[in-house]
Amino acid sequence: MKLFSKDVYIRRRSQLREAVPQGQILIMGNNEAPMNYTANAYRFRQDSNFLYFFGINMPGLAGLIDGNKTIIFGHELTLDDIIWEGPVEPLSSFAEKVGVTEIHPLEDLPKFIKKDEVHYLPPYRGDRSIFLKETLGISQAPSVDLIKAVVAQRAIKSSEEIAEMSAAVNISGAMHVAAMKACKPGKMEYEIVAEILRTVKMQNAELSYPIILSVNGQTLHNHFHGNQMHAGQLMLNDSGAETEMYYAGDITRTYPVSGKFTTQQKDIYEIVLKMEVDSIEAMKPGVSYRDIHLHANRILIEGLKGLGLLQGDVDTMVSEGVGGMFMPHGLGHAIGLDVHDMEDLGEQYVGYKEGLERSTQLGLKSLRFAKELETGNVLTVEPGCYFIPELISKYKEEGKFKEFVNYSRLESYLQFGGVRIEDNVLVTENGHQILGNPIPKTVAEIENI
Amino acid sequence: MKLFSKDVYIRRRSQLREAVPQGQILIMGNNEAPMNYTANAYRFRQDSNFLYFFGINMPGLAGLIDGNKTIIFGHELTLDDIIWEGPVEPLSSFAEKVGVTEIHPLEDLPKFIKKDEVHYLPPYRGDRSIFLKETLGISQAPSVDLIKAVVAQRAIKSSEEIAEMSAAVNISGAMHVAAMKACKPGKMEYEIVAEILRTVKMQNAELSYPIILSVNGQTLHNHFHGNQMHAGQLMLNDSGAETEMYYAGDITRTYPVSGKFTTQQKDIYEIVLKMEVDSIEAMKPGVSYRDIHLHANRILIEGLKGLGLLQGDVDTMVSEGVGGMFMPHGLGHAIGLDVHDMEDLGEQYVGYKEGLERSTQLGLKSLRFAKELETGNVLTVEPGCYFIPELISKYKEEGKFKEFVNYSRLESYLQFGGVRIEDNVLVTENGHQILGNPIPKTVAEIENI
Repeated sequence: MKLFSKDVYIRRRSQLREAVPQGQILIMGNNEAPMNYTANAYRFRQDSNFLYFFGINMPGLAGLIDGNKTIIFGHELTLDDIIWEGPVEPLSSFAEKVGVTEIHPLEDLPKFIKKDEVHYLPPYRGDRSIFLKETLGISQAPSVDLIKAVVAQRAIKSSEEIAEMSAAVNISGAMHVAAMKACKPGKMEYEIVAEILRTVKMQNAELSYPIILSVNGQTLHNHFHGNQMHAGQLMLNDSGAETEMYYAGDITRTYPVSGKFTTQQKDIYEIVLKMEVDSIEAMKPGVSYRDIHLHANRILIEGLKGLGLLQGDVDTMVSEGVGGMFMPHGLGHAIGLDVHDMEDLGEQYVGYKEGLERSTQLGLKSLRFAKELETGNVLTVEPGCYFIPELISKYKEEGKFKEFVNYSRLESYLQFGGVRIEDNVLVTENGHQILGNPIPKTVAEIENI
Repeated sequence: MKLFSKDVYIRRRSQLREAVPQGQILIMGNNEAPMNYTANAYRFRQDSNFLYFFGINMPGLAGLIDGNKTIIFGHELTLDDIIWEGPVEPLSSFAEKVGVTEIHPLEDLPKFIKKDEVHYLPPYRGDRSIFLKETLGISQAPSVDLIKAVVAQRAIKSSEEIAEMSAAVNISGAMHVAAMKACKPGKMEYEIVAEILRTVKMQNAELSYPIILSVNGQTLHNHFHGNQMHAGQLMLNDSGAETEMYYAGDITRTYPVSGKFTTQQKDIYEIVLKMEVDSIEAMKPGVSYRDIHLHANRILIEGLKGLGLLQGDVDTMVSEGVGGMFMPHGLGHAIGLDVHDMEDLGEQYVGYKEGLERSTQLGLKSLRFAKELETGNVLTVEPGCYFIPELISKYKEEGKFKEFVNYSRLESYLQFGGVRIEDNVLVTENGHQILGNPIPKTVAEIENI
């Protein structure tokens, strides 16, 4: 188990205690997650909040901050555990490494909990909900004070975290290069997935999210890998690694199956690349990410207008949300221990703020991070351009955007698929820094692989 | 989505209806399983009972058999689903393929459920428990009648199932051969795991359970893959594939990291191999699997006695359970859609019967299948021999088995690790059949890789 130094966890917990000075703070770890029966579990993934404040990557734990005391609840191993799971360090030894000296059995947790004064975070797994309600008897809602305090801390990445996140991007980069090299006409998509899996495991890492890889890149979260690849198609690969310390990378690259872009592909690719590069260029503390999203949208609209696919006033098209038809997702999201960092703490806290309302426009409504950037934020920048046949035909039938969209010219793009380009970017005091080593991105770089 | 022919599902359901003629039969499908937040889910794995009776591999479904009517509850896709997840066949089309013509939204399920007359199976995921209790308002226990009926059906594999299970073993075999070839002194264990992952995905398959692979084979379920491998060590690899139709393979092979067995390793290996081969040889309808387990135990004890590690009367050692010290697990278990088939329906129904009580002896207490074999059963046969330092030193201190065990001679085995050899075997009318193509198993076959 790889841990930061003891001081890191002590400092994080004391900062949290200061932000939420009254009441108990309960941070629950995850349990094993049954796949098709109890004992056949998915890979164990500790809860990210527990990792952040208590570090220990074992199932069945809870952390409690009560006044000035910090306690970990869990179990020491039995001989049966050793026979089946192997000799590992005792819990007490791990607890000591994260600065906690008081340990109790998990069964005793109910005796320690002050039901009406305990702050806890929203559960996202059923077993956890049952435990909070039935075992601990907690009936109040998750604590907004605690959510806000946790978000404030986790949103600003420390130098140790940046190092881990850069490592995650570098492993992700190796995955992408291996995939580019393996991509050949006639092969099946899952053969590329096989190379990615091999590459991530060769670095003793895991995937941070299920691989999105398809010649049908217009499907945003395409987890089907059963297509044969043909020359003339684009391959969209959105995949990232999770390091041993559970920090995520989230990278997308798009490239021609044949190795060479067609003119049509290059035209669209260069638009998306400009959206990405210019968006990153605009990132610095104080700039609203919603504005950057909208600026990327403007580049997309100008580009499609240049190709004769759109017509009319660019400002109007931006404000009417015409861009959402071709990029029905947001420009990016916070990333850290979670690939969509802290998503289940509530995007209204992570990416929005009071007075900043979420749009209902296709595209903008899926923008997960809209507020001003701060030094230490890490975000994905992942513009795209997609030609989604079902959406185009629906809009055409409805006459939607008919003054802007050249539907007849769009016909020749119905087999295009989609392009997305994504990097992970740190907001620095003076601007920004793309994390990790460069991964082939320009047309020339990709064609040279 | 790969399905058996419509008749298969219709026949299975009608057989179930006959076995449980009164009341409603509810078979719940699985939901997506959140990893670190709701939207970042683990690979979707449909519930095996749902797969067996309703086939459809999509989240958020329920199947209800009510009188002579069969209904699937679920959702048709929206345009938003198509944008994010891609155009797939509608639910109604899949339902038709498994012989179901009536479909309702999942929200309507509570209106159809007769709370007090509904038979359902034990839930193993928290979200499912919450749904049964809070959404459907069911308060009675899972139905033993339904459990027994399902176990009776799933325990006997049809020819279509045998074909799938043979395919699962063949993919598993390819994984094992790739692992053997990649195993070299100086490499890390996870590098072998990487080759296994690549191999299984190249066949568009998945793992049926987390890979157990270690130079510390004495740890029965060792999922840690961070050791460097050295000449002189044994590598134990217990891993299997799940086919596109979700049938499992479960194969173990053990081999020297250097490619050549030492004399000590070969001595133990040949004992385990004889346990495996003789156990398979003994399999036929009517023979108790507990007796076969005990016979394998006897071979182990005789073998260790031959090496001077044990001494005394073999019959006494078998009945006192001395073998459990070196093989603290059972000989095998049922396998099918689950690698431990139907484990959460209750091993008392799957592998035991009235009057056949579970032992409390180390080893025998972990025997998951003890009753008489029937034509159509598929079981794993997986004897092993392990030298577990923690267990040996505990027993030595306690003076346990001191009249039988030569503790001083055991000293030279404390670094040995463990050997396990496992195949998947069908019980046929006249005997048995090892599923799939042969996977290198004898000392000569392994040394020739």
